[in-house]
Amino acid sequence: MTARTLYDMELSGNCYKVRLFCALLGLDVALEPVDLMAGAHKQSPFIDLNPFGQVPVLQDGDVVLRDSQAILVYLARKYGGENWLPTDPVGMASVVNWLMVAENEIARGPGDARLHDKFGFPVDADGARANAASILGLLETHLEENEWLALDRPTIADIACMPYVALGHEGGVPLDSYPAIQAWVGRIKALPGFVAMPAL
Amino acid sequence: MTARTLYDMELSGNCYKVRLFCALLGLDVALEPVDLMAGAHKQSPFIDLNPFGQVPVLQDGDVVLRDSQAILVYLARKYGGENWLPTDPVGMASVVNWLMVAENEIARGPGDARLHDKFGFPVDADGARANAASILGLLETHLEENEWLALDRPTIADIACMPYVALGHEGGVPLDSYPAIQAWVGRIKALPGFVAMPAL
Repeated sequence: MTARTLYDMELSGNCYKVRLFCALLGLDVALEPVDLMAGAHKQSPFIDLNPFGQVPVLQDGDVVLRDSQAILVYLARKYGGENWLPTDPVGMASVVNWLMVAENEIARGPGDARLHDKFGFPVDADGARANAASILGLLETHLEENEWLALDRPTIADIACMPYVALGHEGGVPLDSYPAIQAWVGRIKALPGFVAMPAL
Repeated sequence: MTARTLYDMELSGNCYKVRLFCALLGLDVALEPVDLMAGAHKQSPFIDLNPFGQVPVLQDGDVVLRDSQAILVYLARKYGGENWLPTDPVGMASVVNWLMVAENEIARGPGDARLHDKFGFPVDADGARANAASILGLLETHLEENEWLALDRPTIADIACMPYVALGHEGGVPLDSYPAIQAWVGRIKALPGFVAMPAL
């Protein structure tokens, strides 16, 4: 029995980030599916764990955390030593910078485009695809000269940013014209312990 | 002479976060205004510092950082000890959780509404105000039972989240019906070293 539970939705890229990072760290985690189609995320008991009414939520013993990026920070600090999130000021800020790109530019780009196309969310799909072109161009340029996003090794920056970029084709944002991004996704897929998700 | 420079825009809440936190830490910082109206943020030399073409950017000696939340992390780790951003897993994740709220829900709520009303950005103002009502309701409930957002003391979570909440009236999102949020803004304004910005 594990005391570590992820409140999960299989097709959520944000939940997948947590599943992937647990796998890379070699951590067991029990998956508790939340039925978003039935609105379970907006009702008790889930809403009592996370008033924001969103997956993922991680429960690790007495600790309950929301937001995929914050959960990655927790897991990295608790189980990853300095490897995945260093504590020196420049190293930590460099990683956090890309966590913010995941939460902002990538979410508002390929993330929102996929919400529209795959799940029928009423978002501005053209605006999201324009945002996607902007952030993918920046990522491509960065990854032409860097193997990993933040440091000279994989960090939670890569875990946070990869899923919605690699799922872009489900929102009309394919990666055909971004070879450096494709190569980076390939490097993440080659990490020991990597697990996939549907459509990835 | 200081080797610390903030590439700044006076009316940007994101730049203000950095000015405010430097003031609270007692750090000198030279302000280098970037003329966004003239498009200086999209051209050399600024774009070479930050390919994203956004303020703020902090230069501290050889270190160059973008994104207000990442800059707060850097300053907290370098100059703030454990006070403003602790390094224990739960404490750090609790702070980062609210940095993500600043980057996501607050930006997509009162932040976008202000971009529309004050600066004429072509964003969905009604959608932004609906987002604002949602996040302000969550903040109000949280602050009815907590003096500060993340821990039992002020952290960079409070610095990151306050500006666009307190500027909401410039985007048609006043705080009249949110007394707990108003009291929290008041506590931040009472911190030793606090500095204001226009409309705050």
